[in-house]
Amino acid sequence: MTLGVGDDCALLRVPPGQELAVSIDTLVAGVHFLPDCDPQSLGHKALAVSLSDLAAMGAEPAWATLALTLPADLPRDRPDWLPGFCRGLDGLARAHGVALVGGDTTSGPLALSIQVHGLVPSGQAVRRSGAAPGDLVCVSGTLGDAGLALRGVLAGASVPEPLRRRLDWPQPRVALGLALRGLATAMIDCSDGLAADLGHILAASGASGAGAELDLAALPLSAEVAAIGDWSLPLASGDDYELCFTLPPTQVQALTGLAEAGGVPVTVIGRIEPAPGLRLRRPDGTLHTLGRSGYDHFGA
Amino acid sequence: MTLGVGDDCALLRVPPGQELAVSIDTLVAGVHFLPDCDPQSLGHKALAVSLSDLAAMGAEPAWATLALTLPADLPRDRPDWLPGFCRGLDGLARAHGVALVGGDTTSGPLALSIQVHGLVPSGQAVRRSGAAPGDLVCVSGTLGDAGLALRGVLAGASVPEPLRRRLDWPQPRVALGLALRGLATAMIDCSDGLAADLGHILAASGASGAGAELDLAALPLSAEVAAIGDWSLPLASGDDYELCFTLPPTQVQALTGLAEAGGVPVTVIGRIEPAPGLRLRRPDGTLHTLGRSGYDHFGA
Repeated sequence: MTLGVGDDCALLRVPPGQELAVSIDTLVAGVHFLPDCDPQSLGHKALAVSLSDLAAMGAEPAWATLALTLPADLPRDRPDWLPGFCRGLDGLARAHGVALVGGDTTSGPLALSIQVHGLVPSGQAVRRSGAAPGDLVCVSGTLGDAGLALRGVLAGASVPEPLRRRLDWPQPRVALGLALRGLATAMIDCSDGLAADLGHILAASGASGAGAELDLAALPLSAEVAAIGDWSLPLASGDDYELCFTLPPTQVQALTGLAEAGGVPVTVIGRIEPAPGLRLRRPDGTLHTLGRSGYDHFGA
Repeated sequence: MTLGVGDDCALLRVPPGQELAVSIDTLVAGVHFLPDCDPQSLGHKALAVSLSDLAAMGAEPAWATLALTLPADLPRDRPDWLPGFCRGLDGLARAHGVALVGGDTTSGPLALSIQVHGLVPSGQAVRRSGAAPGDLVCVSGTLGDAGLALRGVLAGASVPEPLRRRLDWPQPRVALGLALRGLATAMIDCSDGLAADLGHILAASGASGAGAELDLAALPLSAEVAAIGDWSLPLASGDDYELCFTLPPTQVQALTGLAEAGGVPVTVIGRIEPAPGLRLRRPDGTLHTLGRSGYDHFGA
């Protein structure tokens, strides 16, 4: 960066040989978060969601801009809101070396847009489109935790703190994304649920798309999610912000090192196949059909 | 650009020797525009406001991202809204060679954030901070037209079309901004009113700020604004998106060429002085004090 907040534009210097990866995301009160949620976790999560997009390209976070819309009476009614929000945002920004270089503050219904800017050596960004038949399908961390926590919150139930943190304080898998440069053939972050997100990789890969078979028994689940016995949690609930990526089978020995570099477990959950479509194999060998919504029992 | 909409991030390639100028702006329905305004002019103006920030740095527009928040029932209730908005945005984007490389569409109260990205040779961006005593203060176009049009709209009066276009279809002075690289010592776009915007240049320039004297008789006014006889229109009403810049007196002969290159008249309206503060000199030689708000008669 050569010039930050305080002029008509911020000026960013992209080093030679690097491309700039950019992503913009909006969060609206009442749609993406509860208006009375903890502002500090909101500040964290707003940036985390965007950094997760950079991680999914193998880009190194560098800069962010923030467009914040606040109700006119919020500073008076909730004087702790803005300092809390900034604390949450700033904490994660510092952890990843992200400089806030510009922004816009306006009056209106509570909402915010964050654009993140990351650096990746030219040609080395990991796209969604490179998966090839035979590639291993892998995922980081555990799946379905944020979805289970959200169910509890919406039901007014008490949610155990570790589960609650998975929803409110997601950790973007930046280090893993960087370690996957030159190894992963395709990558995406799990924001909408594994089945939908892997679906994006399949749609983008191959001349006319690709398919995959997942081994349901291999899905990495926390004890809490495993105890529920509902496939829709790991497959169709969002907000986990784990990375889903494909790896040539010749790179299987890299997995241990990747997990260490990323500071998060990495699990092989299936394989890319030439036949289009997503096949979900049960432990008994039969195929599972993902329900459109609602409870999707392990035994069904 | 190497990759646009459709992956986790867009990938932008900044040519060697260039810096990236970025600016993000938010427009909220009911705050920055009337909810029932023409969506095509809104699409135009939303991008124009941002391109004006690039122009004010001397940056060449390259890419834009759009975060659009739409009420859930808008596509059904106003099926022409989104196509109209896109038409307005796209028309101006094409005129300036801007590629829309990414975005986010969410449900919520009508609002939008646009981030623009421009290119400027390293070290050649025109900042707010370079004005020096003796520099000429110059401005493009005419001042106060958008403010006068807004008065008419808010009063429910009939507003002549040319004046109305100054409010709804502002033209970012991109060509003039580019022509001013290496010439202007400081620059800003007039979004908040000349006095406030020139005030930002004065605050940023000099070791402890600088001052300026403006010749009120020199302010470039349309016939409509001149007929009103209210200094607050050219001095304190916003939304004109003309460029205000400072030029060393040795460059005065460049003005004709600048106006030709920019396709807009350029007028010298005053001079930077060492004494802090903004002095407004009336034709009779006395000083005018800018009222805080409201009508500010030429004769006062």
